[in-house]
Amino acid sequence: MKSEHIPKATIARLATYIQVLSEFKREGTDVVSSERLAEACSVNSSQIRKDLAYFGEFGVRGVGYYVQDLITSIKRSLGIDRAWNCALVGVGNLGRALLRHREFSRKGFIIRGAFDCDPYKIGEVVEGMEIVCSRQLPAKVKELGLDIGVITTPPERAQRAANYLIGAGIKGIINFAPARIAVPKHIHLEYVDFFHYFYAAAFHIRFDESRD
Amino acid sequence: MKSEHIPKATIARLATYIQVLSEFKREGTDVVSSERLAEACSVNSSQIRKDLAYFGEFGVRGVGYYVQDLITSIKRSLGIDRAWNCALVGVGNLGRALLRHREFSRKGFIIRGAFDCDPYKIGEVVEGMEIVCSRQLPAKVKELGLDIGVITTPPERAQRAANYLIGAGIKGIINFAPARIAVPKHIHLEYVDFFHYFYAAAFHIRFDESRD
Repeated sequence: MKSEHIPKATIARLATYIQVLSEFKREGTDVVSSERLAEACSVNSSQIRKDLAYFGEFGVRGVGYYVQDLITSIKRSLGIDRAWNCALVGVGNLGRALLRHREFSRKGFIIRGAFDCDPYKIGEVVEGMEIVCSRQLPAKVKELGLDIGVITTPPERAQRAANYLIGAGIKGIINFAPARIAVPKHIHLEYVDFFHYFYAAAFHIRFDESRD
Repeated sequence: MKSEHIPKATIARLATYIQVLSEFKREGTDVVSSERLAEACSVNSSQIRKDLAYFGEFGVRGVGYYVQDLITSIKRSLGIDRAWNCALVGVGNLGRALLRHREFSRKGFIIRGAFDCDPYKIGEVVEGMEIVCSRQLPAKVKELGLDIGVITTPPERAQRAANYLIGAGIKGIINFAPARIAVPKHIHLEYVDFFHYFYAAAFHIRFDESRD
């Protein structure tokens, strides 16, 4: 690997490449030209080459990419050739939707524990998983070998959820709550804010209207 | 506005700036130094200046940014100083979570219609909204003045949902379904794939482990 400083945009595009390549695979396509892959991913082929160059050399001149090989290589490069065990904290509407979301296990992120502070929720079973009190996180993280914490609490409880997860020895946090949180340097933190897609749509629609 | 080619990463960061500025506002902070804003947003201050420069001149030398003024300016620049009416297609787990998500109306994206093809769901009321058959989209888009379509169907139904929305005259589509879809050029399309945040976390955790 050339560098730990792989741009975030590259990792986001790699996610797209895997999705599109998986669609090609399902359709029975074994080899795909770089132009066809680029078109299906809505990027240009030099961008794909640049993104893949962080991880090694891929593709065969005059042929293109072997679909299965490229999926395997990207997954290995990203570290998703193994399963990652996740703890979800905050079993509200969004939490429940994620617990029921089939793509998680398909993509190698297995939600193995669901945690909440609400005594009315503790003991409830969602998707075959019993909701456990967040105070039990340290014991459960060890017992279940949990790597990544997923925060889906209301914003005002996000920091507390993060503290529980960090104290329990989790290595990374994906924060869906609309609140900034503080974590020590050794914890990898990602904010999920899907509103920026809405902002982008609003911005472009208004821009188009202003030109009409 | 200098250009329609505002990088996506800039728009994503503007979303973060608005969120952090709103937190400062709630705490009663009227003026914030560029260093403090940068730190709270986890970017450097020259990046903030660069992002804002697409839209005009902001900030007062030696003072920083006026919190409310900057929120107002960013919202106007992005086109979110008005409300946007949204149609949600696909009332499964994720669809329901979005219908109940309070941040939508807070951020100016009002979900005014919920659509599904499933006869068992049509007529059901979620969050005070009756689920309507997707075939009624053309009538409802006109009646309710809907601007943006939100697709939360299973992947295999995403293209059909998009076709309904496009036929109904929607201007932009936010696709949460894990499938690529085809839309005409005048429709602004955004894919929401929150798995790339998981990929990024997995990648960085493994990279850190490999250095230990």
